[in-house]
Amino acid sequence: MTPTIGGIREAAARLAGKAVPTPLLESPLLNRALGGRILVKAETLQRTGSFKFRGAYNCLSRIEDEAPAGNKGGGVVTYSSGNHAQGVAAAAALLGLPAAIIMPTDAPRIKIDNTRALGAEVIFYDRWTENREALAEKLASERGATLVQPYDDPYIITGQGTAGLELAGQAAEMGARLDALLAPCGGGGLIAGCALALEAESPATEIYSVEPQGFDDTARSLAAGKRLAVEPGGHSFCDALLAPMPGELTFAINSRLLAGGLAVDDRAVARAMNVAFESFKLVVEPGGAVALAACLSGAFDCRGKTVAVICSGGNIDAATFATALQGQSD
Amino acid sequence: MTPTIGGIREAAARLAGKAVPTPLLESPLLNRALGGRILVKAETLQRTGSFKFRGAYNCLSRIEDEAPAGNKGGGVVTYSSGNHAQGVAAAAALLGLPAAIIMPTDAPRIKIDNTRALGAEVIFYDRWTENREALAEKLASERGATLVQPYDDPYIITGQGTAGLELAGQAAEMGARLDALLAPCGGGGLIAGCALALEAESPATEIYSVEPQGFDDTARSLAAGKRLAVEPGGHSFCDALLAPMPGELTFAINSRLLAGGLAVDDRAVARAMNVAFESFKLVVEPGGAVALAACLSGAFDCRGKTVAVICSGGNIDAATFATALQGQSD
Repeated sequence: MTPTIGGIREAAARLAGKAVPTPLLESPLLNRALGGRILVKAETLQRTGSFKFRGAYNCLSRIEDEAPAGNKGGGVVTYSSGNHAQGVAAAAALLGLPAAIIMPTDAPRIKIDNTRALGAEVIFYDRWTENREALAEKLASERGATLVQPYDDPYIITGQGTAGLELAGQAAEMGARLDALLAPCGGGGLIAGCALALEAESPATEIYSVEPQGFDDTARSLAAGKRLAVEPGGHSFCDALLAPMPGELTFAINSRLLAGGLAVDDRAVARAMNVAFESFKLVVEPGGAVALAACLSGAFDCRGKTVAVICSGGNIDAATFATALQGQSD
Repeated sequence: MTPTIGGIREAAARLAGKAVPTPLLESPLLNRALGGRILVKAETLQRTGSFKFRGAYNCLSRIEDEAPAGNKGGGVVTYSSGNHAQGVAAAAALLGLPAAIIMPTDAPRIKIDNTRALGAEVIFYDRWTENREALAEKLASERGATLVQPYDDPYIITGQGTAGLELAGQAAEMGARLDALLAPCGGGGLIAGCALALEAESPATEIYSVEPQGFDDTARSLAAGKRLAVEPGGHSFCDALLAPMPGELTFAINSRLLAGGLAVDDRAVARAMNVAFESFKLVVEPGGAVALAACLSGAFDCRGKTVAVICSGGNIDAATFATALQGQSD
């Protein structure tokens, strides 16, 4: 199955009553400050605090449909820095599937705790020395479980695309014609799904991925016309966006549909977290604030434009958030 | 005009496309911890960060309708600790009316700054020694302006009631039958409007006001069957809920429709701000968190019940929020 707008519409129907229809917010004071119209899609309010629930539920509900009787016991295995983990854990709980999730030892405490509280088993690996894909494949095979990719899966991509479909409808209701859409990018599932949705619903809108500096593999891959890995030695507090390389499926879509890739530094991200707090009353984690950071830092020039920005997720420990509010980025 | 469900429906029509339809959120983990189903109405996401925009726009748009030609120049005068101030400032800006707002000298900086940034003139008074009502009447008379009451006005009450109408519809869509609704209470405009809305839409729902300890004049008035003033000497960091006495109009409604009044201490409020942060990714100011605090502290027993809780507003300085996240209440 290739991800298409039809698949996104089907995912939206499947998610109705399960996912939160998140609001598209606007602040006249911020608009004035930036000289444009900024519409913030508050996906932090999604079930489990990030858009990841959309893709996870869409994907897991197919596994449930398609599994031969009795095979449900094997459940699902995945790997994640913490937001996809919670999305899969919540979807698995709703569907009655066992879930085992491979997470880095340095994942934020709130992400580990919530994943466990949602009923999933958490297995740790070292982000810098171990290969999580290999660990996940081994575990899935041992358990007879289905391996759920965090982004490089058609159902994950179409599930995440429902956020784009929803925001396109909300923008139209508000009488807004979107010049651009900016979204955070790790492996590229969210931006790929949204690009497909807007290709159908708002084809004149330019789509940009936003990544942390040092982890701008999608931006560099888009410029090079081929998939490039992250260069070693980078550091960022955007723990959700440290994926090592664009996905195959996601890059095939993104290289066709994206206008470009942007990158922001941690300082700009901390400032965006403050603006989300003050202007939108939203708790946004570092990785969730990169698209807003691109508008505020000038990496993207909003003047005279109507720009949709996805803010997601919001899973951050209280102490880290308090530090960021006080103007420090760790 | 007496506030009625008809007035609330009319206000809802007037607010369509102006006010944000705010989401009704739920956390399976919090539900499990409290042994009930808690539905949080995120009015912090309303324009200007609190429900106050609803009443202000509803009220000011009537002034605009009814003013004789040429009288618009006098504009509006009001008094407010900061959330009604911003609501009036935003509504006045949308309607092209001048606004002057009497605010206490100790209002949070973010509320003063936002009120001014929205184009209103701010005039300070001392919360503990000056009579804000008298100051406002004098100013309105000098300027030929209309005095807008913060809560004791039929259009303010029906405007705030649209939050209740909206949440009743959302709860029904989620298949939730509300056993109770809890909302923050200062002068009583929000809870009165919501009580009227639920009397029509969900008559079996019990309605409770929630106030800070030491400022529980509505709870005491409900118990006594007559309006009682706040007793002197109280202290609370819930700056939005320090109104000295229930309103006449609001108390007439609340004494008829409320099941009772609850009170919570600052420590419970700080904990509720933390839960709103962690479980709902919402920035909630102290006064906005009292209803959630009543559920968490046991002031209201949620076990086995479906309970709607209004969280509003979200206007709090970053330093104060960071302090509350770290477990201190000032």
